[in-house]
Amino acid sequence: MSDALRRRLFDQLHSLTIVDPHTHINPHAPASTTLVDILGYHYYTELAHSAGMPKANIEEPGLDPKEKTRRIISGLGPIENTIQYSWFIEIAREFFGFQEELVTTKNWEPIYDAAQKKMASPTWADDVLKQSKLEAVFLTNDFDDPLAGFDTKKYVPCFRTDDLVFHLGKSEVRARLDKATQSSVGSAAQLKTAIGKLFQHFKKNGARACAISIPPDFAPTKIELASAETAFAAVLKEGVNAPVERRRELSNFVFWTLAEYCVEFKLPFDLMIGVNRAVYPTGVFQGMDLYDSRVSLIQYKELFNAFPQVTFPISVLASVTNQELASYAWIFPNVVTNGHWWYSNTPTFIEHDSAARMEAVPRTKQVGYYSDMYKLEFALPKFAMYKRILAKILAERYVVDRGWSEERAVAFGTEILRDNTRRIFYAD
Amino acid sequence: MSDALRRRLFDQLHSLTIVDPHTHINPHAPASTTLVDILGYHYYTELAHSAGMPKANIEEPGLDPKEKTRRIISGLGPIENTIQYSWFIEIAREFFGFQEELVTTKNWEPIYDAAQKKMASPTWADDVLKQSKLEAVFLTNDFDDPLAGFDTKKYVPCFRTDDLVFHLGKSEVRARLDKATQSSVGSAAQLKTAIGKLFQHFKKNGARACAISIPPDFAPTKIELASAETAFAAVLKEGVNAPVERRRELSNFVFWTLAEYCVEFKLPFDLMIGVNRAVYPTGVFQGMDLYDSRVSLIQYKELFNAFPQVTFPISVLASVTNQELASYAWIFPNVVTNGHWWYSNTPTFIEHDSAARMEAVPRTKQVGYYSDMYKLEFALPKFAMYKRILAKILAERYVVDRGWSEERAVAFGTEILRDNTRRIFYAD
Amino acid sequence: MSDALRRRLFDQLHSLTIVDPHTHINPHAPASTTLVDILGYHYYTELAHSAGMPKANIEEPGLDPKEKTRRIISGLGPIENTIQYSWFIEIAREFFGFQEELVTTKNWEPIYDAAQKKMASPTWADDVLKQSKLEAVFLTNDFDDPLAGFDTKKYVPCFRTDDLVFHLGKSEVRARLDKATQSSVGSAAQLKTAIGKLFQHFKKNGARACAISIPPDFAPTKIELASAETAFAAVLKEGVNAPVERRRELSNFVFWTLAEYCVEFKLPFDLMIGVNRAVYPTGVFQGMDLYDSRVSLIQYKELFNAFPQVTFPISVLASVTNQELASYAWIFPNVVTNGHWWYSNTPTFIEHDSAARMEAVPRTKQVGYYSDMYKLEFALPKFAMYKRILAKILAERYVVDRGWSEERAVAFGTEILRDNTRRIFYAD
Repeated sequence: MSDALRRRLFDQLHSLTIVDPHTHINPHAPASTTLVDILGYHYYTELAHSAGMPKANIEEPGLDPKEKTRRIISGLGPIENTIQYSWFIEIAREFFGFQEELVTTKNWEPIYDAAQKKMASPTWADDVLKQSKLEAVFLTNDFDDPLAGFDTKKYVPCFRTDDLVFHLGKSEVRARLDKATQSSVGSAAQLKTAIGKLFQHFKKNGARACAISIPPDFAPTKIELASAETAFAAVLKEGVNAPVERRRELSNFVFWTLAEYCVEFKLPFDLMIGVNRAVYPTGVFQGMDLYDSRVSLIQYKELFNAFPQVTFPISVLASVTNQELASYAWIFPNVVTNGHWWYSNTPTFIEHDSAARMEAVPRTKQVGYYSDMYKLEFALPKFAMYKRILAKILAERYVVDRGWSEERAVAFGTEILRDNTRRIFYAD
Repeated sequence: MSDALRRRLFDQLHSLTIVDPHTHINPHAPASTTLVDILGYHYYTELAHSAGMPKANIEEPGLDPKEKTRRIISGLGPIENTIQYSWFIEIAREFFGFQEELVTTKNWEPIYDAAQKKMASPTWADDVLKQSKLEAVFLTNDFDDPLAGFDTKKYVPCFRTDDLVFHLGKSEVRARLDKATQSSVGSAAQLKTAIGKLFQHFKKNGARACAISIPPDFAPTKIELASAETAFAAVLKEGVNAPVERRRELSNFVFWTLAEYCVEFKLPFDLMIGVNRAVYPTGVFQGMDLYDSRVSLIQYKELFNAFPQVTFPISVLASVTNQELASYAWIFPNVVTNGHWWYSNTPTFIEHDSAARMEAVPRTKQVGYYSDMYKLEFALPKFAMYKRILAKILAERYVVDRGWSEERAVAFGTEILRDNTRRIFYAD
Repeated sequence: MSDALRRRLFDQLHSLTIVDPHTHINPHAPASTTLVDILGYHYYTELAHSAGMPKANIEEPGLDPKEKTRRIISGLGPIENTIQYSWFIEIAREFFGFQEELVTTKNWEPIYDAAQKKMASPTWADDVLKQSKLEAVFLTNDFDDPLAGFDTKKYVPCFRTDDLVFHLGKSEVRARLDKATQSSVGSAAQLKTAIGKLFQHFKKNGARACAISIPPDFAPTKIELASAETAFAAVLKEGVNAPVERRRELSNFVFWTLAEYCVEFKLPFDLMIGVNRAVYPTGVFQGMDLYDSRVSLIQYKELFNAFPQVTFPISVLASVTNQELASYAWIFPNVVTNGHWWYSNTPTFIEHDSAARMEAVPRTKQVGYYSDMYKLEFALPKFAMYKRILAKILAERYVVDRGWSEERAVAFGTEILRDNTRRIFYAD
């Protein structure tokens, strides 16, 4: 009974056309060109590396895509259990006609060839969007991205601000800022003006969010301009070697400035909280970051209170922070729950975390899922994973436990999966 | 099979007459007089506010109850998914004959009118108690509550001590203390004596517990009288502006004094651990508090060791602290698990937390649930929610997974739900 | 359907002969001689004590085993709900022909007598191993254990190092070290040499792991020899009263030295992270330890990066640390998930924690379970508990949710339960 119920709910949710509110898609090359674009995703390289494959095997310079694909596949045996592996199988099946259970060094070539053929089509990216029922995907754009040469309705710009908040000590970042804003930023006041120009640029080009990922020890606070000037002077002089306290003040000044512009430009500010970068510095590309789960949203108390006009869609890296997220979204009108991020994007955590949000956060304040993908082919299996879990929760905890009709359950799921993304990111 | 099993277990648990060991009931007005007493519960106002309803709409002074009810109902649409909303629907159905799934601005008036009629009955409070199968409810009494004019067997006094421990810096609190104890408290020694008088007063009037809610950073420790005198002198002189260290010492002195009197007066000391007050100071009434989940029961090590004669029924605000609670109750004879508090009082957390306690804490040391209600009508849906989860756990984890008989499962549930409250709070 | 599926998967997993990779078995007396060896396990004494049995009842000197058994049984009523109690019942049934549901003061004597008779057999330990399908069990050996007089293939030595890392301040520990290494350790350099001798001794005698349990506030870091000399001198002079900073440096020096020898001697280094010792110092024997769950694997960042050649099978005491463990094992090639330790060794936590690991950690890097037992009779019920949960996860999350064949699910379970122990601990 419950299995059939889950299937029925899934089928209805799966029929919806949606917007993916957070990805790392390159709008100039949104889809893969060979299978290595799929298997080069850090989940495969880092898991294969964790299971024993030498980094050099994967990252050898000048490696032919087909050879690299073969090598990665030869290292996937030990990760066949993982949910990430299942995404790959679902891609192979849904897009490339694969019909077996496992991809091995014996049966991979036909997939590679089939993929290459399909990916060669000039309509491939649109084909993938269509098959995946995606009408738009949000991007992650560097602050100096020209945002030109692509359809910003389909590939929606988002202003990613990590570099500005955390890396102004690097001279190359400051040089990029100068160039992007056609200015010479020599003071905190000028920095503020320059950031305003970036907002204008992004807003003019259809940006729908400002976004940032944040380490666990950051606690935003307002910095007065005078202190910011001192801090910026220190950073200009000593760069990344400036005293940690000065750098922290500058980070806070920039962060607060971003929030202020989010008011002015009516942009939600996506906070992705909890990542420590380069914990494993000799890991594979993009497979070096981890976290300290001892973080609290109490660190954002001052921010949430200071900016009631800004919506903060929040992702937390660790499932142990999810209850705080649900509680803060239940109390603060400007806090919204946003997807299941990275190390929490696996079924056991998604199920526990979603279920907790669904029963305590207003239904209009939950953005259920984003794919976080680098290539379009991943939206389908990642969203499908989420929708299966969503259907399971709706079946077990709403239809069975609470006696809801299936219609009502699907309507709730539809809001979380589809409608709230429009409601929150397209509010103005 | 499992659904039918769950229902059978629920039906048996639901037939029990119980004591509710923690509420905020006003014994002089225990039940609601109009529907606004139900919908004015902070869960509805804060969730509706979080979903977009302006605070002024709800808190406009002099608002007519019916108009306020209409306004709140008009803001409930976005929270129809929440478990709190389901409590309201269950109240409307069980007490007021409502038969639909959702209460809206179109169908609410008949409920309002039906409620008003029923609530006008002089026996309404007793009717609710009877229908809810409650024989007694524990109160939350200010330290200066006269405890007069009500049946203390039915409405059982509890000595709430937050003001004494955390707010002696406020002159009005000290004035209330002087008045209540007919003394002039000018020293720590006199403070101790005065608190003793309060214990006498509460004990004489049938109090069954001393209780307090505690912020996450508090770690009780013994303070010698000499230090307490210095601390109290500083607080007398500077009030809430006394140095934080002095205020903390005074808090500790009072806290420790309470525990000492709990020995003398044979009262359990309910600790509700983990709340930060006024995190969102512009929120609606009672909708401002949140928490930092980084708290540990190791902070209570000294206390638990120092007072083996005192039973500490403990509630934790965050589910991530629940494993510690279960472990400490498994090791310390004087630690008891107590209910599912506030932000952890939603089904996903109750299920995870209860299941963990049930399999590792002696069955005699688990107080399953309390309603925390302000009006009597809430006991029914809140306890029903808990009993459904309890029945689910007993069905799945005991009858199915461990092969227990249904009889044995019900007996275990009965202890958690009913018997331990008597065992622990009526021990002397 | 799902129940039958779970049973089929369990039956296949239950048929495997396995190695238990962590126990506290005394190889000279591996099995029990009377029922008191079973019921004297700290789980029973501490839970009975927590539920009200005075410590003196249990720990009265010179108590007759049968009388002590009777006393403990008389205190088990309040813990009949616990999973630990179910282990005892399963032992009584599987080994001693007990057929009832509960052991009470009325029916215990036949079990006692049956046990005594069976335990008197000279083949009892081997009988238990055989019935429990165990081919070997890992030990926990003090650093000065002679490792003589037993079959080290069946009872596999492990070098337990808590005393060296955390207790060198005690003169008796240093005396034991001098004796075991036939040296007079008077400097950090000599300490390093002495530890090398211990590794030689253990490796020569078939040790398969170095192991340690660690308090939550420890964060290993490399200490230069010069600093270590200063630290060791302070500890030699002042013992356990040496400044905490010096003692911490010495701990770090020894810890790092152990890791260095693990490279040289090709031994995995089991880390059991998170225990606070003697939180309840007046508790029963072995029933005094608890924890502060605020710990992070980020504390081990330097260690994991410094020793890529060492495999670290890691156990965490609190379930809230499990996601970090899964994530670190997903990224770091040298981090392996290891069992379900102590306060996390109860079904609700095992289920949540295993499920999370199984879907995100390479299948080759998960050591599913160890018994942690002191007497051989406990392997059977503890592993059976784990296997039931493993079968449940495989049934629900792999066969049902992900469409795996039962064969594939069993193969995955077999690796976690059996193969990885060989793969990881018998690698050289």
